Amino acid sequence: MKFTTAITHIKNGKESIRNHVLTDLIANNSFVQTIFLLLKKELPSAAQEKMCNALFTAVIDHGPGTASAMNARISASTGNNIHSSLAAGILGFGARHGVAVQDAMTFFYDMEKVEDIASHLKTMKEKKTYAPGFGHKIFTTDPRTEALFTVAKETNIIGNYCALAETVHKELNAIASKPLPINVDGAIAAILCDMDFSPIEGNAIFLIGRVPGLLAHCIEQAQSKEGILRTSEDDIEYIG
Amino acid sequence: MKFTTAITHIKNGKESIRNHVLTDLIANNSFVQTIFLLLKKELPSAAQEKMCNALFTAVIDHGPGTASAMNARISASTGNNIHSSLAAGILGFGARHGVAVQDAMTFFYDMEKVEDIASHLKTMKEKKTYAPGFGHKIFTTDPRTEALFTVAKETNIIGNYCALAETVHKELNAIASKPLPINVDGAIAAILCDMDFSPIEGNAIFLIGRVPGLLAHCIEQAQSKEGILRTSEDDIEYIG
Amino acid sequence: MKFTTAITHIKNGKESIRNHVLTDLIANNSFVQTIFLLLKKELPSAAQEKMCNALFTAVIDHGPGTASAMNARISASTGNNIHSSLAAGILGFGARHGVAVQDAMTFFYDMEKVEDIASHLKTMKEKKTYAPGFGHKIFTTDPRTEALFTVAKETNIIGNYCALAETVHKELNAIASKPLPINVDGAIAAILCDMDFSPIEGNAIFLIGRVPGLLAHCIEQAQSKEGILRTSEDDIEYIG
Amino acid sequence: MKFTTAITHIKNGKESIRNHVLTDLIANNSFVQTIFLLLKKELPSAAQEKMCNALFTAVIDHGPGTASAMNARISASTGNNIHSSLAAGILGFGARHGVAVQDAMTFFYDMEKVEDIASHLKTMKEKKTYAPGFGHKIFTTDPRTEALFTVAKETNIIGNYCALAETVHKELNAIASKPLPINVDGAIAAILCDMDFSPIEGNAIFLIGRVPGLLAHCIEQAQSKEGILRTSEDDIEYIG
Repeated sequence: MKFTTAITHIKNGKESIRNHVLTDLIANNSFVQTIFLLLKKELPSAAQEKMCNALFTAVIDHGPGTASAMNARISASTGNNIHSSLAAGILGFGARHGVAVQDAMTFFYDMEKVEDIASHLKTMKEKKTYAPGFGHKIFTTDPRTEALFTVAKETNIIGNYCALAETVHKELNAIASKPLPINVDGAIAAILCDMDFSPIEGNAIFLIGRVPGLLAHCIEQAQSKEGILRTSEDDIEYIG
Repeated sequence: MKFTTAITHIKNGKESIRNHVLTDLIANNSFVQTIFLLLKKELPSAAQEKMCNALFTAVIDHGPGTASAMNARISASTGNNIHSSLAAGILGFGARHGVAVQDAMTFFYDMEKVEDIASHLKTMKEKKTYAPGFGHKIFTTDPRTEALFTVAKETNIIGNYCALAETVHKELNAIASKPLPINVDGAIAAILCDMDFSPIEGNAIFLIGRVPGLLAHCIEQAQSKEGILRTSEDDIEYIG
Repeated sequence: MKFTTAITHIKNGKESIRNHVLTDLIANNSFVQTIFLLLKKELPSAAQEKMCNALFTAVIDHGPGTASAMNARISASTGNNIHSSLAAGILGFGARHGVAVQDAMTFFYDMEKVEDIASHLKTMKEKKTYAPGFGHKIFTTDPRTEALFTVAKETNIIGNYCALAETVHKELNAIASKPLPINVDGAIAAILCDMDFSPIEGNAIFLIGRVPGLLAHCIEQAQSKEGILRTSEDDIEYIG
Repeated sequence: MKFTTAITHIKNGKESIRNHVLTDLIANNSFVQTIFLLLKKELPSAAQEKMCNALFTAVIDHGPGTASAMNARISASTGNNIHSSLAAGILGFGARHGVAVQDAMTFFYDMEKVEDIASHLKTMKEKKTYAPGFGHKIFTTDPRTEALFTVAKETNIIGNYCALAETVHKELNAIASKPLPINVDGAIAAILCDMDFSPIEGNAIFLIGRVPGLLAHCIEQAQSKEGILRTSEDDIEYIG
């Protein structure tokens, strides 16, 4: 099983990550700086680090009722150890949960090549194709988007893709039947595009950010006395 | 499926984590501060935050050959998406890989109650019970331990459990047939005990720290042209 | 990554399982015979095959509300493929769900060495140690146990461990405050002990039997129009 | 978390699967019959049961070097329990491993609607699109295909889709630069199409068949004394 890698080099017990000696990183660099180094092969500027902190924090948890948190808690409730419960939680993400950042990044990178955005969005609407990163069940303005764009302005990270997101937002709402705010996933996606991340890296950033939340759910459920979480037969309708 | 939680509260779309409004955390707090908040129910001091940064960085990756990295890479090599590959990687951790921090914490909390450490270690040696957090294949002094203890001193986090680790180190080497340094897991464990974390939280901290490394391996293998990673038949001995 | 194996040998494309040529197994042997061969290194007798069919069938599904089925369905509901959803489902098993067969086998193998069963059970009761394989929420006699023991008698598999289970059952009910039938897990365990399986193999047999049920839940949920399964906020009590 | 199901009904402890009482299934039906019932909502004929036995047996294992077996063994080698190791193994399947049956079924269902197969295959070749279910590293005739088609003839299951596979085979080899046999996945796919299974059910059938093999690898590795399976640093080329 031979393969190549450019991530981490260990020789005689001495470890370097992307050509930075690990003990130097421990002494001098933050966790977020080292995550950035792992993904982008260079250390971030102070502005990039601040922006990443805001992005990770924005996705750190979204409550115990989500599919991923439920899987993590159910697994912990039957007596699994923490890492197996975390794996179950991660397998709760899927095309419909936890990939909105990646999808919105792909959408923005595609839209960047589109000449007439208004007409493109009209065609999407006719085809009932959903614009990822827009819309919210409750909000007409997503407060997390505002918080993130504020940091993006402070750090000067804000750029063409955030502007593109605003344009799409304006044109989308010109034809929508209800307000479609830039939601938190759309804001994160636009900012990550402005930071030159790829969609797959955007997915990794979401996962890194959410893992602490899933682990908090694993620990809480493992230590609770509620026993096995299972669905009551009253909530299941048998239609056989 | 009814249960209680004290982690995250969402009402009318507004989210709070451990009673801190999410948008405030985005604006004012770092990722590591928010992780600390999730686990410990309060924001860290500047010293605690600095220490946590060093701890997470110390475990961020340990090369592509470990069991967890191999599982992640194999899964990515057969065409799985990033989150499924990450889950496979996490399932590579087990009682013999990735739990040394938790085990060493339990050991230190137990040793703290032991009166005669030297005699206790002698009994352990006779029973061939391994002291978790000590020993290294190559190093007689683990440079990561030195780097972490330096930060622990700078931040004044260093305390009774780090001292206990030093005592165990001294007594262990008095009876060992070869040098047994405090290794990186032992150092992390002693520091986490001095920060009043529980062993299960220590395990969560290790997992949070290592997930970015696993994701870097997933992405690298997913984007490589090496095809499916599988073991050559030459490396498998059939003994049936 | 060198290792040895005695399971399957492939040379020049020709495959043998436990020294039986695969194409011969396809032509002449049933799935259950080949499962038995994999685990026990020899083909079963007709009686053993019949018994195994009854055991696998007895555990094939236990409804959509169990922790494992819920994990599988939640994962499928967010758009995961079938194999990732199955993995999530399997991670729903844990010390409190899906290991009763293994636990009861260990218990029977231990009890076989106990001289005074009645007094041993009394001590267990005083220590509030639960006897795995006994008791049911609703039944005073488990109809699945009766069905399995009927097959065990027909096939002459029934032996010392089934007799031991009956003895434990009698002595347990002499001191219990409510009827404690031999439940389906206890019956399977006793029969597997009489077939000379180890507890870990008993666990494997349970998993083989249940996987088809989990997959049926994955497919049903993947094809439903119910959208993402998540817990309603009404069912979650915030106690932070 | 409300949802509907038509698989298993449990009321007052009494369980039915697809409207068949579980205790009757235990008494009268084989494991393979009950799997068929779960997936197809009716019990199989004797011919269908015999065919399914051959199909499950054909995929039961493919050696310890495959990606899925490696993941399972690595996970077991670090000390995970059997169900977590099995989950890791299953996450080794992916678009390039373990889905050939499903892909070939989709291909056959598509080809059935194509008028001029020869010309369609020529276009595919020009586009370098691979025909799933054909070709083998070593064999010019896959002996497993012969074994399965023999059973398909004996049971009269053989039908239009097996004939279609033969037509595709003939036309493909007329334009191929090397012999492309119908491989075991192609044979299974054609037979499953003739049995009126859907591609997703074909995937489930593959998984059901392979799980016993993965579990045998989990148990063997868990009981071996080889320690943690990890890749030697000699097999990893650092290119950073």
